[in-house]
Amino acid sequence: MQPLHIAGKTFRSRLFLGTGKFGSPAEMAQAVQASGTELVTVALKRVDRETDTDALLAPLRTASLGLLPNTSGARNAREAVFAAQLAREALETNWVKLEIHPDPKYLLPDALETLKATEALAKLGFVVLPYIHADPVLCKQLEGAGTAAVMPLGSPIGSNKGLRTLDFLEIIIEQSQVPVIIDAGIGAPSDAAKAMEIGADAVLVNTAIAVSQDPAAMARAFALAVDAGRMAYEARLAAAHDHAQASSPLTSFLKD
Amino acid sequence: MQPLHIAGKTFRSRLFLGTGKFGSPAEMAQAVQASGTELVTVALKRVDRETDTDALLAPLRTASLGLLPNTSGARNAREAVFAAQLAREALETNWVKLEIHPDPKYLLPDALETLKATEALAKLGFVVLPYIHADPVLCKQLEGAGTAAVMPLGSPIGSNKGLRTLDFLEIIIEQSQVPVIIDAGIGAPSDAAKAMEIGADAVLVNTAIAVSQDPAAMARAFALAVDAGRMAYEARLAAAHDHAQASSPLTSFLKD
Amino acid sequence: MQPLHIAGKTFRSRLFLGTGKFGSPAEMAQAVQASGTELVTVALKRVDRETDTDALLAPLRTASLGLLPNTSGARNAREAVFAAQLAREALETNWVKLEIHPDPKYLLPDALETLKATEALAKLGFVVLPYIHADPVLCKQLEGAGTAAVMPLGSPIGSNKGLRTLDFLEIIIEQSQVPVIIDAGIGAPSDAAKAMEIGADAVLVNTAIAVSQDPAAMARAFALAVDAGRMAYEARLAAAHDHAQASSPLTSFLKD
Amino acid sequence: MQPLHIAGKTFRSRLFLGTGKFGSPAEMAQAVQASGTELVTVALKRVDRETDTDALLAPLRTASLGLLPNTSGARNAREAVFAAQLAREALETNWVKLEIHPDPKYLLPDALETLKATEALAKLGFVVLPYIHADPVLCKQLEGAGTAAVMPLGSPIGSNKGLRTLDFLEIIIEQSQVPVIIDAGIGAPSDAAKAMEIGADAVLVNTAIAVSQDPAAMARAFALAVDAGRMAYEARLAAAHDHAQASSPLTSFLKD
Repeated sequence: MQPLHIAGKTFRSRLFLGTGKFGSPAEMAQAVQASGTELVTVALKRVDRETDTDALLAPLRTASLGLLPNTSGARNAREAVFAAQLAREALETNWVKLEIHPDPKYLLPDALETLKATEALAKLGFVVLPYIHADPVLCKQLEGAGTAAVMPLGSPIGSNKGLRTLDFLEIIIEQSQVPVIIDAGIGAPSDAAKAMEIGADAVLVNTAIAVSQDPAAMARAFALAVDAGRMAYEARLAAAHDHAQASSPLTSFLKD
Repeated sequence: MQPLHIAGKTFRSRLFLGTGKFGSPAEMAQAVQASGTELVTVALKRVDRETDTDALLAPLRTASLGLLPNTSGARNAREAVFAAQLAREALETNWVKLEIHPDPKYLLPDALETLKATEALAKLGFVVLPYIHADPVLCKQLEGAGTAAVMPLGSPIGSNKGLRTLDFLEIIIEQSQVPVIIDAGIGAPSDAAKAMEIGADAVLVNTAIAVSQDPAAMARAFALAVDAGRMAYEARLAAAHDHAQASSPLTSFLKD
Repeated sequence: MQPLHIAGKTFRSRLFLGTGKFGSPAEMAQAVQASGTELVTVALKRVDRETDTDALLAPLRTASLGLLPNTSGARNAREAVFAAQLAREALETNWVKLEIHPDPKYLLPDALETLKATEALAKLGFVVLPYIHADPVLCKQLEGAGTAAVMPLGSPIGSNKGLRTLDFLEIIIEQSQVPVIIDAGIGAPSDAAKAMEIGADAVLVNTAIAVSQDPAAMARAFALAVDAGRMAYEARLAAAHDHAQASSPLTSFLKD
Repeated sequence: MQPLHIAGKTFRSRLFLGTGKFGSPAEMAQAVQASGTELVTVALKRVDRETDTDALLAPLRTASLGLLPNTSGARNAREAVFAAQLAREALETNWVKLEIHPDPKYLLPDALETLKATEALAKLGFVVLPYIHADPVLCKQLEGAGTAAVMPLGSPIGSNKGLRTLDFLEIIIEQSQVPVIIDAGIGAPSDAAKAMEIGADAVLVNTAIAVSQDPAAMARAFALAVDAGRMAYEARLAAAHDHAQASSPLTSFLKD
């Protein structure tokens, strides 16, 4: 399979993981390892608190794992830029997952503030990966603003509803010059496989793994599904047909 | 992962392959090997013709691979029973994939003749795996008639439309005492993963692999997807939610 | 709009109503009237009980309304034929809605017993309307057995899930020589409209009307939706497109 | 049914019509009349050209019909504001359907420029109805900017794919303080009924009516479907169930 490149960094795994909602840091660490991921998001809030920082971050401090701090909790561009700067100092990385969601119920992203923050952060030298609505026009504007990738949502965060925005993700993928990473809503390995089959460059999964009965096994399941979907994309799936296409010969062997 | 048992035989791979529609016997053999499958269907018609039998069957004659002759082309129970008997002699197996479809356009199965043939073949000592509509009542009747498994369709053969019968497959899986193998219509690895996630015991794939640009790679993609779906089933997926569930903390870190 | 013909009888309304589950006979009668239906199903069980027969049947005894007794509760062909005969005497009609469902949880129909009963009842001079799975092959067999119409289900009875069997309903409609009436699962006027748009001849609705907060208003809503769908079918809908088709001119008026 | 109020104007019909793509002005006029609509959109471009202005506008100049000029063709806020001002003079109305879509292939709207133009036009005294992506956060921002309603898309313009944005439309409707009018993608009366059932205040339809074989009949079909969906919304639909809910009694009448 082809590797993925974002801002000069190469990824063999196209599965990114969120680290929230796990039962314990140990359970999280096992899932991260089982997934084979090379990039995990971390919420700055938790990093910020001295007490549990070590327990959370220690297992993530490995050579092969990139950290992607997110700005979750930021309600506008100003707060997000400030959060990104704090994260850069705390975690020594200029990568940032930009999340700006003023609405506490559905956690849906704010298009305007996200575009504004992307412009500001790109100018400040950040590698910006913004979480956004599956809005194809916005995606092109983010490209113009210097984003490193776009992260359109599949469905509301934590809903596990899968790719409800499919029609728009396909347009985004068709038009994008930067990697497209499907974020939010991916509730099962089949959703992750589907995202890769339509040509997404990567997926970010958190809730579906963290809250399953066996997070490490589920992480491994997602890793396989992402590879399956990517392989199928590279080997080109056939189109759906309206009529039956016989796999086996139609005319009776009895007549031959 | 738990192995699958059908009629006393154990399968580690839950992916079964059809052998029709491939560009060449070599391409088919490569796909079979890449898939890791332990059971492949073969159309009796082709076996019957002496000229190309060797080219077709030779690569399938391995210790680890079970052959499942199908009765494709049979239009009623009588023809199907006769075909199964020919296959038993030709291939030295009492396993049979029962296919009775009078309609040449959509190749949809005939419930009544299939039940009749299942009863007759079970009495004759066959291990019967019938291809049927996703009809939960019929599935229970086939169980009563001594079927070894049921093979409900996901969508019309060769349509690549995936699990259009999902609501009924879930009822079949809930009620079945024999393995449930989803057959027909599985057009992408994500479909195969989904089938396994809802608890299907195995899937049978042919068209989507055979007609792809790279059948061996596609076969491998399906193998990974089937494992992914099964792992997720065993690790239990979380349910879909109507509201957002934050992966990251909601309250602003700026306020802490 | 074209009228519907079944067994020599003409219907201007293509909405049939079930009479179960209503809060009271009066509420049921109001819904029947608001719907403009010309055919209602009645459960023989209730007809059979002398005490409430009058309250139930009195409002249905009008010149413009046909009664369609159903065999609900019958678990096999023998019981269904017996029930139909009782109904013929009690209600003085040779029309019968054939329902045979051995499974008390999902109430799914039994294909084999339904076909057997259809053959028997057609020979006895009944006008048979069988409730069945959306199985295209079975539908053609019922035609051969002398059925007056076929009544494939959209989704399990009372589930309100709509047309989950859409792919198969389309095949049934394409192939059928008798009227196709979609039964079970129609949960909203939009489902009824959709059924008519794809070419169904009529729909049967019960639960969605009977359990709504205002059954008469809901009955009227379904009547409008059925007409809307039928009109659209006769005026031919356009197909769905993959790309945008501008309704308004694309080139800027500023440049003209 | 409850009437709809937008900016102090009352509508009994909740179906708005686009006037593009019709075969002739006469065909368009017949469809408008058959639909019972009280508000139609007109592309300024055509109004602007003297030659066919009369043929187009004459049939729309009736007491009961409001004209809603759109800014189709505008690629940014500045162009859209200019177009709205031209339209106000030409058509003597301060209502405007705001359309800003820089992308000529999918005609998807530009969130940022639309918000900017809405703010400007509201200050200039316009009644603004913006066509937008189904982005719940943007909808609230438009409310803050003084919009009279929001017009989220169901699917790409002219695609006839229906309500692909359903999950997000439901959130928009739940949160909105201004009328929600579903625009774009509504391809069949069943789509329009569904939009109303989930609580949309109105729908705007153009392509599906204009390109059908019988536009006047199709317009009437949509009118019925919109009423059906609204009635059902007001009478409250029941929820979907996972298990069968018998309409008829389960226990056999033969046993009573």
